[in-house]
Parts: sequence; structure tokens; C-alpha cells
Amino acid sequence: MNINPADFRDIDPGERILMGPGPSNVPSRVLQALSAPCIGHLDPYFLSAMDETQKLLRYLFQTENPLTIPISGTGSAGMEASFVNIVEPGDEVAVCVNGVFGTRMSDIVNRIGGRLIKIEGEWGRAIDPEDVRRAVKEHDPEVIAIVHAETSTGARQPLEDISGIAKEKGALFLVDMVTSLGGMEVTVDRTGIDVAYSGTQKCISCPPGLAPITFSKKAMDKIEKRKTPCVSWYLDLSMIKSYWGDERKYHHTAPVNMIFALREALRIIAEEGLESRFKRHMKIHRALVAGIEAMGLSMYVPEAERLPMLNAVTIPDGVDDLFVRKGLLEKYGIEIGGGLGPLGGKIWRVGLMGHSCTSRNVLLFLSALEDVLRSAGFKPAGGALESASEVMAEK
Amino acid sequence: MNINPADFRDIDPGERILMGPGPSNVPSRVLQALSAPCIGHLDPYFLSAMDETQKLLRYLFQTENPLTIPISGTGSAGMEASFVNIVEPGDEVAVCVNGVFGTRMSDIVNRIGGRLIKIEGEWGRAIDPEDVRRAVKEHDPEVIAIVHAETSTGARQPLEDISGIAKEKGALFLVDMVTSLGGMEVTVDRTGIDVAYSGTQKCISCPPGLAPITFSKKAMDKIEKRKTPCVSWYLDLSMIKSYWGDERKYHHTAPVNMIFALREALRIIAEEGLESRFKRHMKIHRALVAGIEAMGLSMYVPEAERLPMLNAVTIPDGVDDLFVRKGLLEKYGIEIGGGLGPLGGKIWRVGLMGHSCTSRNVLLFLSALEDVLRSAGFKPAGGALESASEVMAEK
Repeated sequence: MNINPADFRDIDPGERILMGPGPSNVPSRVLQALSAPCIGHLDPYFLSAMDETQKLLRYLFQTENPLTIPISGTGSAGMEASFVNIVEPGDEVAVCVNGVFGTRMSDIVNRIGGRLIKIEGEWGRAIDPEDVRRAVKEHDPEVIAIVHAETSTGARQPLEDISGIAKEKGALFLVDMVTSLGGMEVTVDRTGIDVAYSGTQKCISCPPGLAPITFSKKAMDKIEKRKTPCVSWYLDLSMIKSYWGDERKYHHTAPVNMIFALREALRIIAEEGLESRFKRHMKIHRALVAGIEAMGLSMYVPEAERLPMLNAVTIPDGVDDLFVRKGLLEKYGIEIGGGLGPLGGKIWRVGLMGHSCTSRNVLLFLSALEDVLRSAGFKPAGGALESASEVMAEK
Repeated sequence: MNINPADFRDIDPGERILMGPGPSNVPSRVLQALSAPCIGHLDPYFLSAMDETQKLLRYLFQTENPLTIPISGTGSAGMEASFVNIVEPGDEVAVCVNGVFGTRMSDIVNRIGGRLIKIEGEWGRAIDPEDVRRAVKEHDPEVIAIVHAETSTGARQPLEDISGIAKEKGALFLVDMVTSLGGMEVTVDRTGIDVAYSGTQKCISCPPGLAPITFSKKAMDKIEKRKTPCVSWYLDLSMIKSYWGDERKYHHTAPVNMIFALREALRIIAEEGLESRFKRHMKIHRALVAGIEAMGLSMYVPEAERLPMLNAVTIPDGVDDLFVRKGLLEKYGIEIGGGLGPLGGKIWRVGLMGHSCTSRNVLLFLSALEDVLRSAGFKPAGGALESASEVMAEK
């Protein structure tokens, strides 16, 4: 069983403009931190970098929760860690489903033996809190779970009312913030969120591989009172918290370089400041929408429920989804996403996340899309760039 | 909830010589690949890098198994992925335990509802195949699991006889190769191993964060015939294989940059060639042992059962474990490991893994250890460097 090393060339991925559903473009400072010399996971320098990463994550989540750490896996590992730690077999768990990621939550609850209360909503729309109230009325759920920013549809979910319902029912409130964290306001403590998780490759603009999570005291209490062990050894927070806490008890070897990169990405966010960052995302999003609509295309999600960082654009009749995405990638090096599940072939998902969320990218994307749409036989209306620029010029 | 970004400085971990139980030092080529621009997880360039990574992993594992991929987590995620995919609740699983990692395997089997047959052996010694034969005699285990290279003790486990027992019993043979892969011979197909996993940060000399695994056809058949879904969504290979196979079906966002780094580390291994690499590890190990013994210290594991890449040195009576390790780290930037569990305070674990396994490091380590031992009140015998150099000069 042999191999010829000469068959393998140097890594050279080129320079993509990442405007899909994630990963977003990674700032050079983050790539530099990523390639710092690797050191031990119990080295004093690394332990202090862990502490700093936790502080920066607490700022980003707007929480005082001691257990605020990156899980050693991608966003989906964060989702799994959230459920496996607080759900025991037989527990009732209410999950809101209006896209791929709510569906994934339900799948996880079923696998670990939770009794699923599924609250379904239209894909591309927010879940109505009244639907949640009705669904849990006759039940006693331990957890109510929802996605803040549905990456598969671009729908934004208001959280306050559903947090109130969770509180009334004495349930833990669990929120998927994979796509929202770092791109729009999330206020874990103020909103009364007990468990939240995210991914590094969306609005944080760090490469994929880590899942920031935060657990409230109430969620930690639930872990302590478990009657059965967490089904996952790798994601068992009752052990992981000892490594991230004062005891420094070895659990698994932390992904050292990825944590260096995350720390740097979080530092960049702190330098920009959350408020400025959220304003930037909103303005660039509005510029994109202005351009898209001027072109004669339309947004899939109603204005009041749109996410700034994930823009679902309806594919016009007769235009070939793949032809356009391939054209953008091959001719301009621009990546956007296609639709998933029932929205496959119906929408494009245009990401404006973190470092990718710039006026430069919006202008280039609109110009490139116009060109590729023309090749696809669709004639865009004029004025897209002017409309976008007008929004960007606003104070 | 605010934060002052000026409180956080640039990442600068210094330059450690990593001679602990992992991570090992990472070659600059690997760090460069790690910091390549991030691209999408469905980008054609990335898909071809995935294919190449699989080819290089098959060479390293010496297998033709199609499902040979890196799991998106550290070595322990590889362990968990191995068990959760092939063990269903109620399945009998025999686990050999002679250190921390066999203990961890047993813990996982219990959590997922397997019926554990625990085969215990002395820490620091290999498991006797006759003990395995006896333990499974009255049973019908679905899996027999063992650690090839016990990182917690430095004991090397011969695999052939136990593979034969697994075959006789019709059980899947599962082997932990976290510390052996890339540093000593592993021959998955020839030895009849059905499931093997490893970590990137030991003899592969890539930063921690990925877990290479390989599954035989027999193991994949067991997955297909499952009556219950895999308890982990994140690690469910029945879905992950579609992303790594021809379908390219999205499962989770792959850790793009870490996979670039792994591919480069594997390319370096292919350039050196497995045979040369294993010879290098063995020779440098023998040089270290010669120096250690010349100094008047002794190895914890009997010669015939020693690992080349993980050297357990008995701490001499009256010498303070922490004082020595701190001295090595603070004065010379050298990291070694302490003992775990019952071996805490009794042994040092000196790693010679991948890029860290050099004659330069051995000479420096022996000199530094002599110096620190003297400060600790222990008087080393002379001739350590000469003895080590003699071994290194052998053809």
C-alpha cells in the first residue's frame, strides 16, 4: 500500500469572497493567530489564553455565565452539547421547527430519548409565540428550544415572548445562535436564555471548528441533578467545566491553535464594539436588499422578519440555480449558498457575515450577479448599484 | 457588560519544545497550510483536498477502507465516534483496560448502554491475549476493544493474537491508535482491524482538533444493520459518509483549515515514508533510554513492551515531580508530562512524537534534565549524552 508524495501539491485555495451561509472570510490577523506555534493544552500561556477567550465570549454573548466556552467541534457539536447535557431520557422537550436547524434539533432530541413536542412553522417565517404557548399548554417541558437566526431560510426569530413562556412553564430556554452571534444583538442574560450555542465560521469570522456555548446557573443546576450520566463523554460539561475552571483537570486535548484564532477573532469584535458591528451588518444588509430589489428580484422573507447576515433571494422563474452559483464562483470567485430541503432551487442564500459584510462586497456581488443573470437569460432592471450606494451613504 | 480590548495582547506563545504526551511540535509547513485562506466546505477545491486527505490517511493506516476520514473533533471524539456507531444498547462489548484510555472506552460503553466486559491489566504492561480469551469465552461480544499505545503509561500492545480472538468470536476489532499512528507500524487491513481512530497532535504533528478514523466493510455493515439510530447526530457516520463520499451531502460545516493542515502533515509523512519514520522513532527512543539509564534513572515499562514515542521514566525517590517539570518548562521551554491516575507523581511521560522526535531534542532534554535534577537534590550519574550519542551514531 504505497503512495507517491509528488502527486500532492502545496495547499493553494485561492482567494474566495465568501458570501454564502458560512464560512465567512477570515481576517489575516485571525489566520496569523491560527498559525502561532502550537503549545501544550496545560501550558500556563495557553491556560491564560483560555481565560481571556472566556471573557471575550461572555462579552459577545452578553452574559455573566461562568460556563461560557468553546466546545471542541463545529456549530452542530454545540447543538448536540446543549441538548445532551440538559435532556435526560423521558424529558419533554419543545422544539420550534421552521427550517433545517430546528429539524436537526428535533432529530437530536429523538436520538437521546427526549419526548419531543414539535412546534412547526412556515419555512422563511418566524415562529408565532402563541403557537408555542398552545403547544406546551398541556405539557410540562424541561426545555423550550428555538433557532434565533435560521441559516436555511434567513428568518429572524424574536425571543422575548418565548423566553417569557419558558419562564412561566419553568422550562430551560435554549437558543441556537449559530448565525446570529456577532452579527446582531444577542443578550443572553437580559433575555433570560439558559443555553445558547454558536459556531465560529459565521459572524465571528474565524475558521469553522469550534462552537461557543454558554450555560446559565439554572442549566448547570439541571446538569448537577441528572439521574443518568450524559450520553456523550466528549461533550459532558460536568467534566469539561473542570478543565475550563480553576481545577484545570485534563479532559481532552483542547484544539489549541483554533482557540488562539477564536481569541483573535473575538478581540477584533471587541475592538469594533458590538453596537457598531450590529449597525454595520444592518446597513450593509439594507444596501444589498435595495440593490436586489432595484434589479427586479425579490427577497423571500418578509421585511420585518429578515436577518441582516443571511439574505434569502428568490430565484426568478426560468433561471437555473446552479448555473448562476457556478458562474459567480468560477468567474468572480464569489461563493453564495443554494436553498436546502423544500427551498432547494427556490432561493439563493447570500451571506453578509462578519468580515464578509462590507460595502465593497455588496457592490461587487450586485455587479457580478447582474452579469451572470444576463448570461442565464434574465434581464435585470437597472439601478442596483445606485440604490445600494444610496443606502451605504446614509449617516 | 463591556470589555476593554486593550486588555488583550497579540498571541505570542513563545517556542516550546513539546516532549510531553502531545501535542508535539508542528512543522512550519503545517502551520502555513493551517493559515491558508478559508474557503467553503462545498468548494470544488476543498472537495479535492478532502479526497487527497482520505488517500493520505489510507496510506498511513495501511488500509483500503473507503471510510477513512478525519472526524471533526479531537482524538476523544474519534473514540466516541467509533463506539457510538457500532454499539447498540444491549450489545456486549469487551474492553481491555490498562490505563486511562481503556478506562475512557469503558466509560463510553456504559454511557451508551453497551454491556461492558471489562478486561483489566496492570498499568504499564500489555494485556495478555489469554486474559481476553478467558473473558470472552462465555460471552458473545459484538466488539473487542483495546488501546494500541497507552499514552498514560507508555505500554505497547501487540495486536495480532487479540485480532484472531475477535475473528473467532465474530466480533469487530476496535483499536485506539491515538498515539501509535504515524510513529510505529500500524497495519489495519493486514492485522484485521475493523475500527481504528487516532488524533492529529501526536505522531502526525498537526495541531489538535481532528481525529482520523477508519471503518472496515464489516464495521460499515454493522452500522447499516442497526435497529436504533446512532445516539450522536454529530458523529453519525451513516450521514457523514455521504459528505465524504460521492454524494457530497451537507452534514456539518467541515473544519476547513484544520483539514488543510492535516493534509500537509500527512504529505510530510508520505515524503519521509512510513518505514523510515518508524525507524527514526525507534532509534531516537533507544537513544533517550540509553541516556536515561546512564543517568541512573530507570524506565517504568519493561523493555519488550515499551512504546518508542511515549517514554515513562520512573521518578527517583525523593525527587519532586512538579519541581522538575516546572524547571524544564521555565528554564528550557521543554514540556514533558506527569503521570495520570495511579501513576501520578510516579512517572514522567517523555514524548518523542513525529516532528518532536529528533536527536537534537534528545540531547537537549538529557542535558536539561541533568541540570534540573541537580537543582532538585538528585545527583545524576555521568555519561548520559555519550550513551545517547552512541545509539544515534548507529547505522
